[in-house]
Amino acid sequence: MLQPAEIISTGKELLIGKILNTNAQWLAKKITTLGLDVRRITTVGDNFDDISSAVEEAIQRSPSFLIITGGLGPTHDDKTLKAVAEALGSELVVSEEALCMVKQKVKTYVEEGKIKCFKWSPYMTKMAKIPEGAKPLGNPVGTAPAVLMNHLETVLISLPGVPEEMKEIFQESVAPLLKKTAGNRTFSESNLRISDIGESEIAPIIVQVMDDNPGVYVKSCVKESKNTLKIELHISTRANSFKAAEDRVNRARDQISELIRTKGGKVQMNESNFEN
Amino acid sequence: MLQPAEIISTGKELLIGKILNTNAQWLAKKITTLGLDVRRITTVGDNFDDISSAVEEAIQRSPSFLIITGGLGPTHDDKTLKAVAEALGSELVVSEEALCMVKQKVKTYVEEGKIKCFKWSPYMTKMAKIPEGAKPLGNPVGTAPAVLMNHLETVLISLPGVPEEMKEIFQESVAPLLKKTAGNRTFSESNLRISDIGESEIAPIIVQVMDDNPGVYVKSCVKESKNTLKIELHISTRANSFKAAEDRVNRARDQISELIRTKGGKVQMNESNFEN
Repeated sequence: MLQPAEIISTGKELLIGKILNTNAQWLAKKITTLGLDVRRITTVGDNFDDISSAVEEAIQRSPSFLIITGGLGPTHDDKTLKAVAEALGSELVVSEEALCMVKQKVKTYVEEGKIKCFKWSPYMTKMAKIPEGAKPLGNPVGTAPAVLMNHLETVLISLPGVPEEMKEIFQESVAPLLKKTAGNRTFSESNLRISDIGESEIAPIIVQVMDDNPGVYVKSCVKESKNTLKIELHISTRANSFKAAEDRVNRARDQISELIRTKGGKVQMNESNFEN
Repeated sequence: MLQPAEIISTGKELLIGKILNTNAQWLAKKITTLGLDVRRITTVGDNFDDISSAVEEAIQRSPSFLIITGGLGPTHDDKTLKAVAEALGSELVVSEEALCMVKQKVKTYVEEGKIKCFKWSPYMTKMAKIPEGAKPLGNPVGTAPAVLMNHLETVLISLPGVPEEMKEIFQESVAPLLKKTAGNRTFSESNLRISDIGESEIAPIIVQVMDDNPGVYVKSCVKESKNTLKIELHISTRANSFKAAEDRVNRARDQISELIRTKGGKVQMNESNFEN
């Protein structure tokens, strides 16, 4: 069975369009490749109520994994864990294990000269306050630990928003859990670039090919409509072995290419991404 | 009063991490600059139930504007309007005005040689099926019209997912509506780049400056934590004139710079974005 996952991104910088949500794309790609099915990505600001509602709504949909990014640092707008605790009906407590991680990090920064003047502050203790019963996950790059929690059918993982920290913790502590849950499910995909034919004419071909190739998903995407008419088709599937998934995608790709050429369209293989 | 807005992005390509959600960032920036407050961005796949739930949940939060992107084309996975109609308790009907827009476009494509072989198909009529009572908005770039609907306090606007089509329709038909709703509210921002000091030491300074400068929001963002420790501060506000907003941001920026230097941190002005 395909295991559903959700992502929640937090941060006002995302809602004002200051930065692109590269974290969500990176996570979505990783989670998909590991064999799970990302069903929703929600972005909210650094607002306690908004984060708490988003988490509460997500856990009501019972995904196998809920990955939350951002808001674990020491500043006023780092409210994620408090909001998660609220959504779970739990409380924040200082975790001795997390406190030890933070102290060790700050000590290293001072030794390395990254911080010049230093004294312990309640803002540092804040990074060790995690929901009761949660487990801190070591942050090999930055200061704030990530946090893992269980709630009914869902594993919640709260990661820092700094991309390099988020990625490292994901690879080290999260990917193995996802892999274990997904089992052997693997994902395979292929791209075609189509021209000289309209999307309305390709539409019935896609329906036929998806019908002839169960489990295969074909997505069309108009690339340029102003001066030329270019369409990209993305063909993907999941199976219990990479070979099975690849064979299925190739079969669908060959059939769709043949049908489009018959209708007068041009077809090119395209191994690059949708975006380029 | 600050008018809330929400964005819903649809498309499996976003959930598998195939592409970055550049549409949502572009819209978020535009909406913010026009003086409204983006509260949430939701991304779902090309799944009828998921789109419909996301729309239903969003309209329950009564944003002034709900902008939806993607899923207006002719293919099997273009389900947005059907899902929106379901969420609004309405039905899809063929709009004569929309049908006229689509016919005109297809005619032009054939004349320009973009489409070689052509016959009218139900997949083209599909692009003219819009929720009852909705208004089609002309698409100067592509084929599928955008759609405007009113529901209680919310204006819903459904835009194509193709970036160039989405942007053109937004500028032409949507931005003027947002501007009218927002009135004179304008947004101003400034960036500082901080080093030689930890985020935990900056935290109380941010609290103090936000307290001394009502309406100003200061967001800190760790830029690099592996080899150096660099933090970016983003200072922003909204006011009824650009001058008032700018003055308020500059005052806060000067105060925060002074306080950080007093604690031994280095401060640089940085007019670039968070991401670089």
